[in-house]
Amino acid sequence: MSKLEELRARLAEISDLGGARALLDWDQRTQMPPAGAEIRAEQLATLARIRHERLVSDGLGAALDGAAAEVEGSPYESVEASLVRVARREWEKARRVPTELRAEITRAASIAEQAWVGFRERADFDGFLPYLERNIELRRRYADCFDGFPGFAHPYDPLLDDFEPGVTTSEVRSILGELRDGVRPLVAEIGPRSASVDDACLRGDFPLDAQEALAREIVASLPLERDAWRLDPTVHPFATAISPADIRITTRFDPGYIGTALWSVIHEAGHALYENGIARELWRSPLCSPPSLGFHESQSRLWENWVGRGRPYLGWLLPRLRGLFPERFRPVEAEELYRAANRIAPSLIRVEADQVTYNLHVALRVELEVELFEGALEPAELRDAWNARISGYLGLDVPDDASGVLQDVHWAGGAFGYFATYSLGNVIAAQIWEAAAADLGDLEEQIAAGELVGLRDWLREGLYRHGSKFMPKEMIQRLVGAPIDVAPYLRQLRDRAAEIYGVPG
Amino acid sequence: MSKLEELRARLAEISDLGGARALLDWDQRTQMPPAGAEIRAEQLATLARIRHERLVSDGLGAALDGAAAEVEGSPYESVEASLVRVARREWEKARRVPTELRAEITRAASIAEQAWVGFRERADFDGFLPYLERNIELRRRYADCFDGFPGFAHPYDPLLDDFEPGVTTSEVRSILGELRDGVRPLVAEIGPRSASVDDACLRGDFPLDAQEALAREIVASLPLERDAWRLDPTVHPFATAISPADIRITTRFDPGYIGTALWSVIHEAGHALYENGIARELWRSPLCSPPSLGFHESQSRLWENWVGRGRPYLGWLLPRLRGLFPERFRPVEAEELYRAANRIAPSLIRVEADQVTYNLHVALRVELEVELFEGALEPAELRDAWNARISGYLGLDVPDDASGVLQDVHWAGGAFGYFATYSLGNVIAAQIWEAAAADLGDLEEQIAAGELVGLRDWLREGLYRHGSKFMPKEMIQRLVGAPIDVAPYLRQLRDRAAEIYGVPG
Repeated sequence: MSKLEELRARLAEISDLGGARALLDWDQRTQMPPAGAEIRAEQLATLARIRHERLVSDGLGAALDGAAAEVEGSPYESVEASLVRVARREWEKARRVPTELRAEITRAASIAEQAWVGFRERADFDGFLPYLERNIELRRRYADCFDGFPGFAHPYDPLLDDFEPGVTTSEVRSILGELRDGVRPLVAEIGPRSASVDDACLRGDFPLDAQEALAREIVASLPLERDAWRLDPTVHPFATAISPADIRITTRFDPGYIGTALWSVIHEAGHALYENGIARELWRSPLCSPPSLGFHESQSRLWENWVGRGRPYLGWLLPRLRGLFPERFRPVEAEELYRAANRIAPSLIRVEADQVTYNLHVALRVELEVELFEGALEPAELRDAWNARISGYLGLDVPDDASGVLQDVHWAGGAFGYFATYSLGNVIAAQIWEAAAADLGDLEEQIAAGELVGLRDWLREGLYRHGSKFMPKEMIQRLVGAPIDVAPYLRQLRDRAAEIYGVPG
Repeated sequence: MSKLEELRARLAEISDLGGARALLDWDQRTQMPPAGAEIRAEQLATLARIRHERLVSDGLGAALDGAAAEVEGSPYESVEASLVRVARREWEKARRVPTELRAEITRAASIAEQAWVGFRERADFDGFLPYLERNIELRRRYADCFDGFPGFAHPYDPLLDDFEPGVTTSEVRSILGELRDGVRPLVAEIGPRSASVDDACLRGDFPLDAQEALAREIVASLPLERDAWRLDPTVHPFATAISPADIRITTRFDPGYIGTALWSVIHEAGHALYENGIARELWRSPLCSPPSLGFHESQSRLWENWVGRGRPYLGWLLPRLRGLFPERFRPVEAEELYRAANRIAPSLIRVEADQVTYNLHVALRVELEVELFEGALEPAELRDAWNARISGYLGLDVPDDASGVLQDVHWAGGAFGYFATYSLGNVIAAQIWEAAAADLGDLEEQIAAGELVGLRDWLREGLYRHGSKFMPKEMIQRLVGAPIDVAPYLRQLRDRAAEIYGVPG
């Protein structure tokens, strides 16, 4: 067996452990009888521990060295060169972190997450603060492990890199800053005109079985491989790939608002379309995933917001809504649906925010995180800093911590560095959309006819099939011929706002 | 950390890997999108391989040695002494088999199982023969690995021991021979009276949603812990424990026959009741299972046949059947239902056989297996030997291999030594039933009132909670104060036949 073959076998095993873990997690959130939770936590921890042991093993290091020599001279974009390159980076990062610190981070996050549920319910930031401090302290120690790691210059870089490899704090700051500064005036201009659009047509009484039928029809109409997905209800929607041929989409249903089921399903199916399009030669390897969470999110958002809230798709959708909810949607015109789907109104809760103000929610979180890890902000000051920025960016008063600094699970779970990927996804999606529309020519006509294969195939060819062979910055350059750039996104947001609210274009 | 603690940690990890594997398997059979099959097979193989590596590791051996010294003097039935004893036996058995042979057995069985599906469909034993020969040859080599293993005297002993630890070929031969010789005259006596009982009342048109409601009501009425199980439809019913607090029961529904859903559900729930009753201190250890498949089966059968086909339970059930299927069951009297549930009639297919003739199906399979591994029978002779014995034991002609030697998946899957456990389960169930009835006094009255907790608690106290702390022969002795004995079972079968068919009691 060559060293490359040995490397592939070792990495396939690590991938299988990851797939098994994903299934246990999906099952826990959709199928598991509640009494199973305690032992399930142990089973998940065991799989994670064994996966990690194998990832940081000397044996994998030796196989990487041997394979590197064997693939010397292979083209950069070849599977074998990419495999060695990407696996080596992952191995080197994983080796930096002592096992005990990693275990302590996991343990503290698990305790903090459980505590967060109660403190959020009681809207008690002060009570939660010690857990948050512990998570932040551990994450600071984690970041310290990467002293001298190539490309890391800022204490927040290692955290960001776990979700967005190779993208630095300084780059993210500049991108999100530009986005924030472009979005704020737009929000201000919409302000006085906000009453001109409402989403009343999406509210009413929507029986859950009809909602589920709608969700199934929507997913089935998207160009996912046949027999390679399933859809289940859950509390917090997500999508997860057990393998690229076995993708679990989940959603939730709000009996009084059809928008949740509708766009949440398209969003999660967008994640599924990405995983489902990864080339077979990359399966069971570390290349079998998008290059970053930002890229993953770019596709959930592209399908949800650019396709799913666009006029052509809504035109296709309206007859289906009328079929399932005749009384509600017979009187609704296409234009009314389009306006409701794209309503913009500042609100306190990120996950309920519209497409525009969402980016301000992200910006403030990332700014606070960076300040925390720079040492410019202490955890105890987070609430005040949060509330001040919500007031500044959105003009809203935060009535309590549950609607404020305690609303997201991320910090409780120790996931610092994650939030940026949501806005990066928006920015990347806009660039991709522009390139796809230019290449395909009749993209809108195809979508209006319910033909989504053309777009899917364009995305597969340029993006999906490559998995994580390329770093995010390489990937965007290859796909659209330019580095990451906020301009297209700001332009598109402004165009839509001009159309709907009549603000200056 | 003491060596005992280290041992526990190692065994807990092995148990977690087993639980994860059980979930991947359950998911594959009940939830997985079909396209996921290929990668799922790899994921299952990886988990099995890692679990096995850990089981046969030198590290586990050293922990066993160290722990053995630490627990010296602990009572035989203590958790720690039992843990060391049972784990050491498993470790020693696993170490006997070279990794390559084990991998080859798994591979050949997987190939044979896939081939079997087609050859069974085409009723082509000759075509399947080479696969069968390969499985048998590999299993002979497997048995050879145990040369000199304490307690093994016959080449079939190691195969049997994997399912029924410590029970020998000579013992099984004697038990199943006595059972066969007791059942055959009973079947002959019923023969001329067989037309006096039919199961017409169980046949008709049973809508699937009502059947599913029935199945759920039945499981919910059994004394399983709340929130610790779920029920799903599948093709071949089974029950599997992801943990004792997370048990997956599956069943199938036949639109023209209500008996399938009804007793198959109680059968699988019987398995679930056993796993659900294992003491918490044994969870995540090799003690967290019944002592053998025979014991496991004793409980599925006890709940299915002794409880579920008895007059008291059927009296409780009939009003529920009338509620769900009023037209079908309003005219049915309790006695008619009881007779239909206990009808005896020789048939060709084991899984459809009645309680009495079922044992003849098992006897002939075990006899053929023993002869194969003794060298008295060659695989090529299996079909003729099968057909001759079906004719001798059941008086039936086998029309084709699909209804004969190719009907079961066991041999295709390499599971030689398994069949005996079905009849051992019957024999053990009868002994346990007799002891429970004597202890509880009013067992029938309790069941008639739908009160099943008394029986469950008796079984938990004497049997379930002990997991596999004791070997099967120790367990039966502790529970009923006697060794395994066919007499109670034969007596109970004859009593019921006397009552229903009027044969001499």
